[in-house]
Amino acid sequence: MSRDFLYNDIANAIASQIRTGVLKSGDKLPSVRVLCKDHGISMNTAKRVFLELEAQSLIDSKPQSGYFVSQSSYLKLPLPEVSRPSSVANDKEPDELVSKVYADMGNEGLTLFSISAPSGELLPLAKLKKEIVHATRELKDAGTAYEPLQGNLKLRRMIAVRSLVWGGDLQENDVITTNGAINAVSLCLMALGKPGDTVAMESPCYPGTLQLVVSLGFKVLELPTHPITGLALDALKQALPKINICLLVPNFNTPLGSCMPDEHKKEIVALLSAHDIPLIEDDVYGDLYFGTQRPKCCKSFDREGNVLYCSSVSKTLVPGYRVGWVAPGKHKEKLLKLKLIHSISSASIIQESVANFLKTGKYENHLRQLRRTLQDNYQHYIHAIAEYFPEGTKISRPQGGLSIWVEFSKRMDTRKLYDLAIKQQISIAPGRMFTLQDQFENCMRLCIGLSWSAEIKFKLKQLGNLAKMMLAD
Amino acid sequence: MSRDFLYNDIANAIASQIRTGVLKSGDKLPSVRVLCKDHGISMNTAKRVFLELEAQSLIDSKPQSGYFVSQSSYLKLPLPEVSRPSSVANDKEPDELVSKVYADMGNEGLTLFSISAPSGELLPLAKLKKEIVHATRELKDAGTAYEPLQGNLKLRRMIAVRSLVWGGDLQENDVITTNGAINAVSLCLMALGKPGDTVAMESPCYPGTLQLVVSLGFKVLELPTHPITGLALDALKQALPKINICLLVPNFNTPLGSCMPDEHKKEIVALLSAHDIPLIEDDVYGDLYFGTQRPKCCKSFDREGNVLYCSSVSKTLVPGYRVGWVAPGKHKEKLLKLKLIHSISSASIIQESVANFLKTGKYENHLRQLRRTLQDNYQHYIHAIAEYFPEGTKISRPQGGLSIWVEFSKRMDTRKLYDLAIKQQISIAPGRMFTLQDQFENCMRLCIGLSWSAEIKFKLKQLGNLAKMMLAD
Repeated sequence: MSRDFLYNDIANAIASQIRTGVLKSGDKLPSVRVLCKDHGISMNTAKRVFLELEAQSLIDSKPQSGYFVSQSSYLKLPLPEVSRPSSVANDKEPDELVSKVYADMGNEGLTLFSISAPSGELLPLAKLKKEIVHATRELKDAGTAYEPLQGNLKLRRMIAVRSLVWGGDLQENDVITTNGAINAVSLCLMALGKPGDTVAMESPCYPGTLQLVVSLGFKVLELPTHPITGLALDALKQALPKINICLLVPNFNTPLGSCMPDEHKKEIVALLSAHDIPLIEDDVYGDLYFGTQRPKCCKSFDREGNVLYCSSVSKTLVPGYRVGWVAPGKHKEKLLKLKLIHSISSASIIQESVANFLKTGKYENHLRQLRRTLQDNYQHYIHAIAEYFPEGTKISRPQGGLSIWVEFSKRMDTRKLYDLAIKQQISIAPGRMFTLQDQFENCMRLCIGLSWSAEIKFKLKQLGNLAKMMLAD
Repeated sequence: MSRDFLYNDIANAIASQIRTGVLKSGDKLPSVRVLCKDHGISMNTAKRVFLELEAQSLIDSKPQSGYFVSQSSYLKLPLPEVSRPSSVANDKEPDELVSKVYADMGNEGLTLFSISAPSGELLPLAKLKKEIVHATRELKDAGTAYEPLQGNLKLRRMIAVRSLVWGGDLQENDVITTNGAINAVSLCLMALGKPGDTVAMESPCYPGTLQLVVSLGFKVLELPTHPITGLALDALKQALPKINICLLVPNFNTPLGSCMPDEHKKEIVALLSAHDIPLIEDDVYGDLYFGTQRPKCCKSFDREGNVLYCSSVSKTLVPGYRVGWVAPGKHKEKLLKLKLIHSISSASIIQESVANFLKTGKYENHLRQLRRTLQDNYQHYIHAIAEYFPEGTKISRPQGGLSIWVEFSKRMDTRKLYDLAIKQQISIAPGRMFTLQDQFENCMRLCIGLSWSAEIKFKLKQLGNLAKMMLAD
């Protein structure tokens, strides 16, 4: 076992204990010497573990005393309970609310806490521009002809190469490119089910997926979801007889930012496979891990082609290019036919540009920087929320991704908070958007993908004041 | 009334009479003097009429005798009958055949008579490249952010401006951009119907649309279609009680290349509106008219927003960019929601490039040249077919577009012809691809969008020989 692996592994284990509350604020950590002995590692490796945890603001060092779990703001901000959606499929679509909030997109006067995308300043615009110009020069026919149905070969190759980072072993021939990840999920759903079928999903979950599933005539079964470990395994087991398709975002789903432990992923893949229920895995946030290690994907435990792995660069590199993909396992032929039917092919120039960006190592550099920024933002948000939001506010513990889930006291209605906040040029995403049931009315999602600034801090203060005012009424 | 209008009008009327067989090979046309008198036009205008018809190879001048309908190859090539599909919806999908033929796409060793797209040499590649580079420089954030849901504003504006050429009066706000026209049609179908509904279409018609309609769970009612005037009105009237949606390609549909007369368009729009049946109009070939005038669209007669007008630049400018659009009339909100659900937004850079190309007049120049080439190709194909194909071969009279429909004697099976031809590196599109019923087995579609050459001529000869051989057996 390499030293790097050890150091990552140990740092991650401690970080996870802190995030999940096993280790509490002020708890003393083992000394460097004890850590060496316990794990059979060198002093240098042990020191790197503590440095990493310090960099993540999870621990503080006190001279002559050692390391302690940070007297952080976590203490003041308890974790929301695991969600308890109804065990009956429901279809109370929050359409008007979603339309209202989505309409804020692109409005430059607003502080868009409501979106789930990295802000433009965090993206490598100049480099992407160069790649586009380069692609028009290099591509056969300048990318004007229909490209092969399965998608740009170079991009599929790069997606296959990068699958190693999440424990996969994809080949270029396993991958089909799509018009963003949502298009991939849409094709999967059309390939796998028929109207009336039931799709099991996390709760709360991304409104776009809910709308998609409903619009295709499927029923949605929302399952209890833990803010840290994601989908509740027991709930899934109980629901199996009712389910035709399972659609999950195991890594840093929005809005919770939870991350399903690898053992759970393995178990779910085996369970669904045994019941012949296909799993659509949406991994658009997987590359945005805080801490030191990329989590695995369900697809990495899939031996039977039962997992349809969907992802994109929309959350990590460039939303507007609409470059996504799917590795559909044994359902590949059906997916190819549907792609042909619904869009014939995808735009080659843009796929070629992204492929070249992925190829050069620029992407890894960019990701490293983006992850650091998001992690810093997360700490800033926690401090601001602890300082400005009403007593009793709970927040999720995202271990990656682009959002925090905020739960106010039961008396709050975040739809009303939205209406008040928008007058102060602040757009939030009310919790009711993330479900088809009557729940989460006292919750909201905040995007942490904005560049941190005094203004963002001030806007969080304003938001906190509005919430306090509403609860005082 | 301007002279230009008159000259176009008269030339079109005569051309149409020749194409439809009202005027026959060898018939004498009125003299220049008589034409002047009959229409109250100048000598110069009358001469322009004859020059235009000569340029289209429709007439010949004989010194001292006047103008005669060309001793053209039409005589040897009768028109196919109006199609007679079953009046019951059917679903015998030619899936394997379609997959086999589509798999030939991109195979550079083959002569692709089977496709329906202009070949790369006919497209302005260098200019398009420049537009892409220009767009990455000009666009806000280099087009990396999600663009507004409805699509690139400049492109929507240009589509609205160009709607004048087909009798429309679209505003930029009426238009939604899509991922090619097939994506527009797909969104329309999802917005308008539910599985089990019946969609009325021309027969024969584009296999991609048939697959799309079937894959969404709709029934397809194929209607009798005339090779020159398109959908048979009476058949549509009789079928009205069975229809939920009508999906037509009134201008130069593939494979027939027929063009519905404007009076028919007007009547169909009124009829469908009265019965509250929405009309999806696919106009991707409309700009590719032979002769002098762009035909109108059904949308131009639509006063109630009942026509959903779909088009793209895939057949006229650049297939691989996947730039299409829909003007969905009163169904706009539903379409917007579905676009959001299935793909969030479209890629801005590519739309901006196409918009700029459309804006500068480059597009009109390009179209003029492309139309001339296609028209010349058409004449070349007719001569070659007349010379090399078996006695009794019938062909359609495309008045625009990219294909000719060929009908052999009943004993022919074009699926077998395909298998023989592919061994000689020739790919054709067997007639069975264009229907869900057992018909058109003795027909095939030939693409006229390839650059004419001695090799193409030779390949047509080879094809004719194979057909003769099969029929001789």
